Amino acid sequence: RINGTRLWNSLMELARIGATDKGGVKRLALTDLDRQGRDLVVQWAREAGLAITVDKIGNVFMRREGSNPALPPIVTGSHIDTQPTGGKFDGNYGVLAGLEVVRTLNDLKIRTEAPIEVAFWTNEEGSRFVPVMMGSGVFCGAFSLETACAARDVEGKSVGEELERIGYRGEQTPGDHPIGAYFETHIEQGPVLEDEDKVIGVVPAVMGLSWYDCTVEGMEAHAGPTPMHLRRDALQVATGIMQETVAIANRYPPYGRGTVGMVQVFPNSRNVIPGRVKFSIDLRNVNDELLNTMHEEITAFVDRSASETGLKITLERVSYYPPCPFHPDCVGAVRNAAEKLGYSTMDVVSGAGHDAIYVARLAPAGMIFVPCKDGISHNEIEDAQPAHLEAGCNVLLHAMLERAGV
Amino acid sequence: RINGTRLWNSLMELARIGATDKGGVKRLALTDLDRQGRDLVVQWAREAGLAITVDKIGNVFMRREGSNPALPPIVTGSHIDTQPTGGKFDGNYGVLAGLEVVRTLNDLKIRTEAPIEVAFWTNEEGSRFVPVMMGSGVFCGAFSLETACAARDVEGKSVGEELERIGYRGEQTPGDHPIGAYFETHIEQGPVLEDEDKVIGVVPAVMGLSWYDCTVEGMEAHAGPTPMHLRRDALQVATGIMQETVAIANRYPPYGRGTVGMVQVFPNSRNVIPGRVKFSIDLRNVNDELLNTMHEEITAFVDRSASETGLKITLERVSYYPPCPFHPDCVGAVRNAAEKLGYSTMDVVSGAGHDAIYVARLAPAGMIFVPCKDGISHNEIEDAQPAHLEAGCNVLLHAMLERAGV
Ligand SMILES: NC(=O)NCCC(=O)O
Ligand SMILES: NC(=O)NCCC(=O)O
Repeated sequence: RINGTRLWNSLMELARIGATDKGGVKRLALTDLDRQGRDLVVQWAREAGLAITVDKIGNVFMRREGSNPALPPIVTGSHIDTQPTGGKFDGNYGVLAGLEVVRTLNDLKIRTEAPIEVAFWTNEEGSRFVPVMMGSGVFCGAFSLETACAARDVEGKSVGEELERIGYRGEQTPGDHPIGAYFETHIEQGPVLEDEDKVIGVVPAVMGLSWYDCTVEGMEAHAGPTPMHLRRDALQVATGIMQETVAIANRYPPYGRGTVGMVQVFPNSRNVIPGRVKFSIDLRNVNDELLNTMHEEITAFVDRSASETGLKITLERVSYYPPCPFHPDCVGAVRNAAEKLGYSTMDVVSGAGHDAIYVARLAPAGMIFVPCKDGISHNEIEDAQPAHLEAGCNVLLHAMLERAGV
Repeated sequence: RINGTRLWNSLMELARIGATDKGGVKRLALTDLDRQGRDLVVQWAREAGLAITVDKIGNVFMRREGSNPALPPIVTGSHIDTQPTGGKFDGNYGVLAGLEVVRTLNDLKIRTEAPIEVAFWTNEEGSRFVPVMMGSGVFCGAFSLETACAARDVEGKSVGEELERIGYRGEQTPGDHPIGAYFETHIEQGPVLEDEDKVIGVVPAVMGLSWYDCTVEGMEAHAGPTPMHLRRDALQVATGIMQETVAIANRYPPYGRGTVGMVQVFPNSRNVIPGRVKFSIDLRNVNDELLNTMHEEITAFVDRSASETGLKITLERVSYYPPCPFHPDCVGAVRNAAEKLGYSTMDVVSGAGHDAIYVARLAPAGMIFVPCKDGISHNEIEDAQPAHLEAGCNVLLHAMLERAGV
């Protein structure tokens, strides 16, 4: 069993770097704070005897040698960058749980057959630079190193420059690094485990995601003298699409998701009929056929709105990845470990994207979820119980041992 | 007859202050640009021999003495602040038409019996600070000087501070300034005159208006892992109220109006379910009983939404004025002048509020409308024909002369 107190203390120590007044963490990818966080984790890894490799997109691999170094390593990890109003656990838990597994193996002087590695991936959050899950995306070839390095933040600084600046542009070619199997522990970021009073979520799959920018163009006019029948009110047409986004998701329970998170109204004045409204649409499903049906339904609805109202509406897909079912062997290893350890479990489909979905393209992968308070994350009040974090880490230890061999 | 070219040239010169790329004007109340606009108009007034008085809310009165200074002045005016995406004519025309009347009287060496005054009122638009028509509202006692001075913009700057800063916090107590009669020329800001091919709109009345701030409070959560039935999506509840706003107006033709012009979503991130949405509601009608029915309907709908969804919704009325019928003498003076001058006329109810409705509480008042292109205003492409602006100004001259006596 792992040392839950040591895991908790490491989490709290890492959370000091970029700590916010409200108890959260703001440690955006490739900032000075990210560098400090990376340096601390690397220092801990060195103290635990691990060998460090950094690749050209800044992914860091920290290796504990196996008795058979020819075998591909069994890898675990996550990310240590955070949202602008992020919490202490999202990503960080996955990395430090891996480190705790290594420390435990050291304590118990256990020699695994396959090597064990702990990884952290660059810019998972996508808050400072898009696309999200950048490091693991480049690693698995979802997009190129050049594309990723050219991405710029709002101030115009590029990923390539910032990697160089903080000293994490490594030598290794991303992806040129064998992986025998990959596990990632993470807080659930949703309310299901807490609602059902379970400790361990076995993650069979991650939902696919389709992101859009939608813009409705009408005609700005004065709210008083313009008769209702002569208006071209962009907001009224937009609200119909916003409601349909949710209606579509509701037509495909239990895994349909539809969210409008971001809205901008122009000119945004109380007595001006909106001339233009821009908003985001986020559709998800664990079934790619259904996700595609949802995509077709929103597209058809937008087309119908445009032809019925005569307003110009554009719907642009800005991100997409398909659902990712995890490998039965890894899912099985997680389930076995949790049952062996006597934790209550249930299957939880991940609604959020994780680095594991990209790694799953190259190697068998699986995830372990633990509850978080009120299902809240991407929020400074994100919280999780030490006992749950310890349980998830124990499951990780045993799942990795099953795959690595002793 | 007035000098249409001089009027046009003054309009174009004033429109340079805050000119936008798209040919409009952005000169928000009490900004540095507003100060520059005010200074230019005051300079022109001084050049025309007028005496300047500024009151404590920054209303400016520019006086041409009459042969009988004991008579209350015949006043005309409007405002020179604009919408964020405003045009060259809204408000500015009413002020510069007044100045052109004075210049014409000077040219023709006409001495009126009653004094003539040209006024511009502070913050008519209400874009930067609510309430709207602030200067004339304080002047007529619709709300207090203290309330108005305490109003703050989104950055937290108050009307009082900003008046001081731009040097337009005057000495005179608002309202402590007799008015014999008030006329205001304005572009129609609607499509009716153009549609009916008339040059002069005689304005029998202005619609009443009811403004609200509505806030829906739900719970921020991650767009992926949060199941649809566990969400408290503030935006989805808000869109229902936004659609009802328009539906209510459509139930009361031809003078019902319903508009949502301003929306703010928190935290406004693509993959976060909105936890809070704040938006404006604008309801109007020329019939006060119907306006009240509309008020009751939106209130009931909001209450129903709150109880059906369990979300907290607040609906706060932030502005209200009843429909304003203008004084028969002033309406008659406008009609007589237009007919005498041979212009085509029709009656047009004003959907937009004007400073005239507040002044009408203290003195007989009336308005003169001229067509604007496609009925568009509160838009950078707002446009009007020089011949129409000249016609409106001629009508103003003769209506004022009828009331002032020569
Ligand atoms: N885990 C996580 O928050 N990923 C960000 C991308 C998403 O919205 O799913
Ligand atoms: N004339 C004008 O635009 N007034 C502003 C108040 C309103 O929205 O009616």
